[in-house]
Amino acid sequence: MAEFLQKAFGWAATDSSGVLAPFHFSRRDNGDDDVTIKILYCGVCHSDLHTVKNEWGFTQYPVVPGHEIAGVVTKTGNNVKKFKVGDRVGVGVIVNSCRTCDVCQQDLESYCAKMIFTYNSTDKDGTRTYGGYSDTVVVDQHFVLRFPENVPSDAGAPLLCAGITVYSPMKYYGMTEAGKHLGVAGLGGLGHVAVKFGKAFGLKVTVISTSPKKKAEAINKLGADAFVVSTDAAELEAATGTMDFIIDTIAAVHQLAPLLSLLKMNGKLVTVGLPDKPLDLPIFPLVAGRKMIGGSDFGGIKETQEMLDFCGKHGIAADIELIRADEINAAMERLAKSDVRYRFVIDVGNSLTNL
Amino acid sequence: MAEFLQKAFGWAATDSSGVLAPFHFSRRDNGDDDVTIKILYCGVCHSDLHTVKNEWGFTQYPVVPGHEIAGVVTKTGNNVKKFKVGDRVGVGVIVNSCRTCDVCQQDLESYCAKMIFTYNSTDKDGTRTYGGYSDTVVVDQHFVLRFPENVPSDAGAPLLCAGITVYSPMKYYGMTEAGKHLGVAGLGGLGHVAVKFGKAFGLKVTVISTSPKKKAEAINKLGADAFVVSTDAAELEAATGTMDFIIDTIAAVHQLAPLLSLLKMNGKLVTVGLPDKPLDLPIFPLVAGRKMIGGSDFGGIKETQEMLDFCGKHGIAADIELIRADEINAAMERLAKSDVRYRFVIDVGNSLTNL
Repeated sequence: MAEFLQKAFGWAATDSSGVLAPFHFSRRDNGDDDVTIKILYCGVCHSDLHTVKNEWGFTQYPVVPGHEIAGVVTKTGNNVKKFKVGDRVGVGVIVNSCRTCDVCQQDLESYCAKMIFTYNSTDKDGTRTYGGYSDTVVVDQHFVLRFPENVPSDAGAPLLCAGITVYSPMKYYGMTEAGKHLGVAGLGGLGHVAVKFGKAFGLKVTVISTSPKKKAEAINKLGADAFVVSTDAAELEAATGTMDFIIDTIAAVHQLAPLLSLLKMNGKLVTVGLPDKPLDLPIFPLVAGRKMIGGSDFGGIKETQEMLDFCGKHGIAADIELIRADEINAAMERLAKSDVRYRFVIDVGNSLTNL
Repeated sequence: MAEFLQKAFGWAATDSSGVLAPFHFSRRDNGDDDVTIKILYCGVCHSDLHTVKNEWGFTQYPVVPGHEIAGVVTKTGNNVKKFKVGDRVGVGVIVNSCRTCDVCQQDLESYCAKMIFTYNSTDKDGTRTYGGYSDTVVVDQHFVLRFPENVPSDAGAPLLCAGITVYSPMKYYGMTEAGKHLGVAGLGGLGHVAVKFGKAFGLKVTVISTSPKKKAEAINKLGADAFVVSTDAAELEAATGTMDFIIDTIAAVHQLAPLLSLLKMNGKLVTVGLPDKPLDLPIFPLVAGRKMIGGSDFGGIKETQEMLDFCGKHGIAADIELIRADEINAAMERLAKSDVRYRFVIDVGNSLTNL
């Protein structure tokens, strides 16, 4: 692997067992447009788990995961005006894109055919990208986000992927009109932030989940207005035709028909989870209720900054379980069982020891 | 069955063989808000075939199909001001609705939970409704459409179902902006009218079909700009990512993935066919391209009149094969094999003989 001047240390998986272990590597020298960041926190996204186990089939080992990065600037290039050493910044799912295509010109870099992911991708210089389960990262300034003053770095880190992944479709599909009724299907890393955004937009928010034991917390802690147990026919029936839109964060294969039944006429179901097999799409409810199903990827850089600023204004951050770097393998096992409230964040700054 | 003063004669199926035979019945007396219509033409919709064979499971025999009705007014009730004897009029998929609910108030009677279908439905007076494969029909004036002067009754009849079923979603989902690229999947009764609407809206129209033999006619006769054979990988590949929206008129179970691949980012696929089993919905293309799949039923009465007036302005009607009433069983057999260019219309006025 290419050697650079900026030494780096992190945790990498080296095969599809997905087990992470200490890993030495180097980052490129800080270029004119680059910002070097000392990483303090990194969220543990379900994509990290998919990738270390090569469940999507395109992992190249060794892989250092992590694309919910929060830290402080330690170096800036000559062309960097908007960041200075000491600034609290973040990095999300991508670290580059072509910058010239139609979607890049529309600030939708997250849909650029040439986007470069924060890890498990090939950078413009031909080297591999390594993620935030590490002590430092070098990123083009365009892809660096600024943390507003009252968004904490630890609980704010998951906003860089989980947050923008639900914020962007809520804006694009018009799910922000105060007084409307939002269903949030799946109450995990993405879902629990969607509840908070929904309340900040002034929506009535109902959580739709298979786990009745999450009800009290959803209502009392996250601020949801109601809770529907999706395996309870009577609860589903009572909520039939009551929702204007649903954001479906369920990553596993699941039935769409019960969710579609909850929508009013003209209702919208937006899916942001990524089940690895096709879902069954019943056509009658779509036609008879003029309903639609839309998808959405994470958002562009400009919108990600807008989302962070929105979080600052409304006091929104993720609910997290802070873990030490050497607890990552145990955390991955719990994540595989959805046993987390609601996002693991690695305390990189205080626990990542260069072994 | 209830007996009324207005004797009627038509063709009915009496069991799930779906074979139609001459049938005597009666229509209700013309009420104060009613219009009695002498039927001249009736289109043969795929729904008629589904219903006579009880393929959707809710047919009550005997059933007289037909909901693409064109004729002339022969009687009007005391409250009827907008129609007079001799007017050329039409009746579509429904003959009544509750008139008071939210969707009825929004002129979306076609989504009313209490709508009454033109056939195989129970009318407000408790009697069964019988469709347009018959000599006369009595309909509340609200559900009667006026034919513009230059829309012929024979080729215009299919507009009452096939026409509005594609026109309504094209309007609702914003598929009318001149210069955009529309794909029309399936070139049957609905698809061939969608091509004509697309051209009238100023769109580039590409037909997507499994039948290469329809290509010349689609382009030379219907005015399509291009043709993609959906089973030809090279043609699909060449058209990948080129379409702004697709109207999917395919009634059989089919793959959505190839259609989704033809859409640009933010593209819309709108399905108006009614496959009787769920379709496979791949989530990755929806998410990665922020694409959506929407459904739509036929439209409301106000929009149906708007559509007819649009057809008058643009010289649009269906391409039909005119048949005699006693040819209906043979026509149904051909329809089951999609062997029709593009809609059968029964010449009721000249061939329905009261046996």
